[in-house]
Amino acid sequence: MTVTIIGIGLIGGSLGITLKENGFATRVIGVDASQENLHKAIRRRLIDEEMSLAEGVAVADVIVLATPVDAMLKLLPEILDRVNTYQTIVDVGSTKELMLNKIDGHANRNRFVACHPMAGTEFSGPEAALPELFAGKMCVIVDGEQSAPDALDTARRLFKSAGMNLSRLDRKAHDLHCAYVSHISHIASFALALTVLEKEKDEQRIFDLASSGFGSTVRLAKSSPDMWVPIFRQNRDHVLDVLDEHIEQLSKFRTLLIKRDFDGFYERIERANQIEKILK
Amino acid sequence: MTVTIIGIGLIGGSLGITLKENGFATRVIGVDASQENLHKAIRRRLIDEEMSLAEGVAVADVIVLATPVDAMLKLLPEILDRVNTYQTIVDVGSTKELMLNKIDGHANRNRFVACHPMAGTEFSGPEAALPELFAGKMCVIVDGEQSAPDALDTARRLFKSAGMNLSRLDRKAHDLHCAYVSHISHIASFALALTVLEKEKDEQRIFDLASSGFGSTVRLAKSSPDMWVPIFRQNRDHVLDVLDEHIEQLSKFRTLLIKRDFDGFYERIERANQIEKILK
Repeated sequence: MTVTIIGIGLIGGSLGITLKENGFATRVIGVDASQENLHKAIRRRLIDEEMSLAEGVAVADVIVLATPVDAMLKLLPEILDRVNTYQTIVDVGSTKELMLNKIDGHANRNRFVACHPMAGTEFSGPEAALPELFAGKMCVIVDGEQSAPDALDTARRLFKSAGMNLSRLDRKAHDLHCAYVSHISHIASFALALTVLEKEKDEQRIFDLASSGFGSTVRLAKSSPDMWVPIFRQNRDHVLDVLDEHIEQLSKFRTLLIKRDFDGFYERIERANQIEKILK
Repeated sequence: MTVTIIGIGLIGGSLGITLKENGFATRVIGVDASQENLHKAIRRRLIDEEMSLAEGVAVADVIVLATPVDAMLKLLPEILDRVNTYQTIVDVGSTKELMLNKIDGHANRNRFVACHPMAGTEFSGPEAALPELFAGKMCVIVDGEQSAPDALDTARRLFKSAGMNLSRLDRKAHDLHCAYVSHISHIASFALALTVLEKEKDEQRIFDLASSGFGSTVRLAKSSPDMWVPIFRQNRDHVLDVLDEHIEQLSKFRTLLIKRDFDGFYERIERANQIEKILK
């Protein structure tokens, strides 16, 4: 199968090398606005060759849209205009509602399968790509009943070949749950990094003392604004809602500290500990 | 050397097995209020034998105080009353000012070396102990000039034998910097866990979607309230100060979302990204 990947960053590049290595793809074509990314991707064998968008779409059995989500809004309708009924398009974006609203009613809508492989690291670009990135992680297929059965089947086989478990949600539920579980974690981590950078002017001190948990809590604060700002823009209302709740939860800890109510503090930590049962 | 460890949890138990394995200790004695902890520690070979506090202190060359920090406040003066000038006491606590204020002027003050090995995991108890826990991490020695040179030397050799790098701070600076870099991370993580538990009632959904960064940001939310509430109690003023800053940083993100100022959002993420330069 010929797979054309549009956007050869962390996710696109990782999918390229994964699908080639596991045999799902016989040929991986890369399309990217950055010539430098394409060169890096070829050198690292993430893709076999580069093409223009038009060429890459024309020769593909499967087209993977792996740009930041703002570019997807623009590219997806253009790609849908070009595909025939033998081709499948999947995306890998973290927000779905706006994009799916935009293509409702498109003549080729059913060639597209909205997918969200929930894998990643705090790094970005083809140099961060990893063949094992997806193994054991969850891929959510969104509004799958609006895709043609063969396109849906191709998308499922693609992500299963990468070792992913599959789940299904509709567009609204997807964006809401991702705001809760993923997007707020990133804002919390950005804010924590800024808190420490603001309060602790001594950089060597941060480095020396950071072993005790700070590193993991703040890991996501290294994430790229080019990827994340479009996500926050598209999922703004849900993110705002969860952010309000998060500020409220922090304010409750603050009130307990002010009142020196350490029994209340203890109870809230015990409640937070319940996350352990869920996470494993 | 005979090392008596008081409090055989994650840190005490890990030190026991580490110091025995690397030869610093020829005999490791455990003291703990919980008989169950002592049995587990002996079964896991974290300690060689158990003793009462009085016996354990009497036979030790080095006494390691590894209880939660509230118990340390009570135990340290009692232990100082019992030691002679050949014995060394070290602690492993995350707060120092209250405890050091309490023993200022004690006749045996200089037998004590205040230490903070900045290592740990989100787990607790002897079952969580690991021999490699300390390797490559930082140990802060606090107000070291108030310890006798031989006691200071013993403490330094002990933590160096466990593979730790050493640093020095005074009591006020230690508690302040730890509030910035360590304690706030835990509150942020507890609050994030509560946010998600509050907003996302569907536990299976949390589990399914948690791969994308949430797991690492919320890792510390599994931490024990028995350990952490005494730390927040003792370091309350500094923690409150940093928590105010953190809520302020989150509120700035909130304001930008409300105003749909995504350029401002981008700039703040770029600034948060600077944490990467410091962390490695």
